[in-house]
Amino acid sequence: MVSEGEAFCPGHVTAFFEVVDDPDPRSKGSRGAGLSLSLGVQTRVRVREAPRPSIDILVNERRQKAEVTQRVVEKLAGSRSFEIKILSETPLPVSQGFGVSAAAALSTALALNDALGQGLPRDELVAVAHETEVECETGLGDVVPASVGGMDLRLRPGAPDRGDVRRIPVRADILLAVLGPEIPTKIVLRDPAKVAAINRAGRPLVDEFSRGPTLERLFDLGNRFAEETGLANRTVLEVIRASRMFGRATMAMLGNSVFAMGNSEHLATLYLKFGTLQRCEVDNEGARVL
Amino acid sequence: MVSEGEAFCPGHVTAFFEVVDDPDPRSKGSRGAGLSLSLGVQTRVRVREAPRPSIDILVNERRQKAEVTQRVVEKLAGSRSFEIKILSETPLPVSQGFGVSAAAALSTALALNDALGQGLPRDELVAVAHETEVECETGLGDVVPASVGGMDLRLRPGAPDRGDVRRIPVRADILLAVLGPEIPTKIVLRDPAKVAAINRAGRPLVDEFSRGPTLERLFDLGNRFAEETGLANRTVLEVIRASRMFGRATMAMLGNSVFAMGNSEHLATLYLKFGTLQRCEVDNEGARVL
Repeated sequence: MVSEGEAFCPGHVTAFFEVVDDPDPRSKGSRGAGLSLSLGVQTRVRVREAPRPSIDILVNERRQKAEVTQRVVEKLAGSRSFEIKILSETPLPVSQGFGVSAAAALSTALALNDALGQGLPRDELVAVAHETEVECETGLGDVVPASVGGMDLRLRPGAPDRGDVRRIPVRADILLAVLGPEIPTKIVLRDPAKVAAINRAGRPLVDEFSRGPTLERLFDLGNRFAEETGLANRTVLEVIRASRMFGRATMAMLGNSVFAMGNSEHLATLYLKFGTLQRCEVDNEGARVL
Repeated sequence: MVSEGEAFCPGHVTAFFEVVDDPDPRSKGSRGAGLSLSLGVQTRVRVREAPRPSIDILVNERRQKAEVTQRVVEKLAGSRSFEIKILSETPLPVSQGFGVSAAAALSTALALNDALGQGLPRDELVAVAHETEVECETGLGDVVPASVGGMDLRLRPGAPDRGDVRRIPVRADILLAVLGPEIPTKIVLRDPAKVAAINRAGRPLVDEFSRGPTLERLFDLGNRFAEETGLANRTVLEVIRASRMFGRATMAMLGNSVFAMGNSEHLATLYLKFGTLQRCEVDNEGARVL
């Protein structure tokens, strides 16, 4: 017997953040703020009982390692012998700060739970995806906000039963511009000097944002974070500054990329001088079974 | 001793084509027309003699199978025992009709020949890349035109000593828009009905274009090819038609994508409703050692 499940998880961008360490990956994560995106990862899962278990992951029809997704599947399948096929589709690039590994992992968790008829609580599926993302060092804070959607303010990190994330519904057209090569999150998060700079800049911004979380302030505080941490390279800083004539832009952490709102036509013309461009909206629904 | 080489090969789009079969991959290929792009693949090669040979290919810092490049390296390295590292960088997506596998293969051939100090003639390197692309079924006609640059009219297919490609230098700003999922070239080229439709539509267009090869006509004949072959899906056809208000667009064969020229601002706004966008120019130089 073959059973199927399908789910969508928004992509997610972070404007600024603070790393919060903890020996327990369900409590580890980040405080910060960002946006869930109408572009994300859509995953179909096909499961059949089989004498020998197997996990096959295709992203955009290509066989991929997809470490986070692989581990999430292993955890949820447990010791039962299934042939599991994961088919994820996304228009977003990886390692550019758009939360693709988180969205792939969470959409897979939701779809697989549905296909297996396990009936695990949604919070547990979000927790498994968050914990696995943290273990794999591919991200610290995309899973939980992408699960709820909207503009997010993450006041306490971690899985749903431990963290504190506020969802603020907003409507906005967002441009995503990729301006340079990929940044593997792991390399930044393993550098103690970088983490220190992130936390020094990020902590006060999270507190400031919590006093009045508006879309404009998300961008403005993001600009301060990008400058103060040194995470933005010269092109990213130049593009952020040039964007002020037509709207607002800030760096998508951690990518060589920006997200922006404002006069789309003028912003698009500017960004096309530097890189690859996509348009989307804010997703106010969060991850969902389809 | 470590030796290095570096080369660039333009990406390449084809507007229309005809498949020309031949048992010899150096004579097999396509007749057709297209453009070389200022976006392409830049490859650095590092070689050192080693007791055990190895080939390591990274595209955008990710380890990749990159079948065409792998085979080109095997052919050029011959039986000598080298540790070979291929580092390719590209902003272009794969399997979207932008000739990335061809550009990766040819830039690798040029850079590797330089690093090994083999002094093989340029035409032989182009022939090896063309032949390998044909063998791998990832493309039929990108290597040779990307080697010369400009707008190309391919009158006879195959490697430089057999084919006939005319290079027409043109200046134009080009928009590239990806509108849907990847199309693996192999799947189309293995379908006899599709190849028959391609040849029925393509042959007269190549002849018509050869009577007056202008940039405008490249697009107009490309439009006819996209419609008559049925290769364009509904979104691609819709985008091509909508583009006529602001310029010209046609499908990049074989991708779910278009290339366009005209009023960039208006075209960009249109394309951002459907997908991912990049801007470039025509590359009139062709593949080159750096």
